[in-house]
Amino acid sequence: MASLKSIRLKPIGFVRTKASLEELKHRVARSEIVVNKRYDKGLEGISGFSHIFVLYWMNKTSETERNVLTVHPRHHMNIPKQGIFATRSRFRPNPIGLTIVKLLKKTGDKLVVKGLDAYDGTPVLDLKPYDYWDRLEKIRVPDWWKKLESERCKD
Amino acid sequence: MASLKSIRLKPIGFVRTKASLEELKHRVARSEIVVNKRYDKGLEGISGFSHIFVLYWMNKTSETERNVLTVHPRHHMNIPKQGIFATRSRFRPNPIGLTIVKLLKKTGDKLVVKGLDAYDGTPVLDLKPYDYWDRLEKIRVPDWWKKLESERCKD
Repeated sequence: MASLKSIRLKPIGFVRTKASLEELKHRVARSEIVVNKRYDKGLEGISGFSHIFVLYWMNKTSETERNVLTVHPRHHMNIPKQGIFATRSRFRPNPIGLTIVKLLKKTGDKLVVKGLDAYDGTPVLDLKPYDYWDRLEKIRVPDWWKKLESERCKD
Repeated sequence: MASLKSIRLKPIGFVRTKASLEELKHRVARSEIVVNKRYDKGLEGISGFSHIFVLYWMNKTSETERNVLTVHPRHHMNIPKQGIFATRSRFRPNPIGLTIVKLLKKTGDKLVVKGLDAYDGTPVLDLKPYDYWDRLEKIRVPDWWKKLESERCKD
């Protein structure tokens, strides 16, 4: 069985953005990912991919919020509570955010991306290329998810 | 600017599988994700999704390997070295694995999944639902990636 001792991570950089909360939420924001200079060489070849996964640390999440196990998805009280592993809530034991973004430009240690929903100053943990294994043809999502998406468009 | 102090995570469970290395590599393995009982309620509603992201801790990665910045993708020496953020290598500053799996069954605190490429005993950090935002229509990948995939089929 896996040891349950704690695991230590270090940010590889951070997010810089002037986007509004609305722009972040609707995944239309332009942001910069500023990578720590010591990891510069790790970015070589990344521009060969049109999209990347950004893994970031949702540092606004308190210790108390890390113990929450069920939430109303996106704070919609009319949707029954769901387990946090069935949502992308920042309330979760390990508040790692995961978003797929479009890679617009790479300049030295900076990546300009579109669609990142992380706040200005958010620590970035990892970047991974998005490839054909990540693009599933047929998927199923629950009805509450479809309902929330249709409401998003009316916002 | 984000503080660069270290971040602590705790496994939420672990992977149990009898699959061979070949099965793991080809993403055909059946595995169980055994979630720690204290997080049971966090799984409520997860079966509404056909696929989930599994974030796991690649615990075979040494401290030295965490400092590697470029690798030959999938150890193919005929492919030029790429920055680790342009690959899914386990050599990276924060060795978090990310794989999309098919959710076959949920029984209490166990999820049966198909396609996970993590070894038996791997600590699991997080589970997230895969939704329509994660399924991109048009993507671009570099030629070396296509070459490796065509070679995979001949293995």
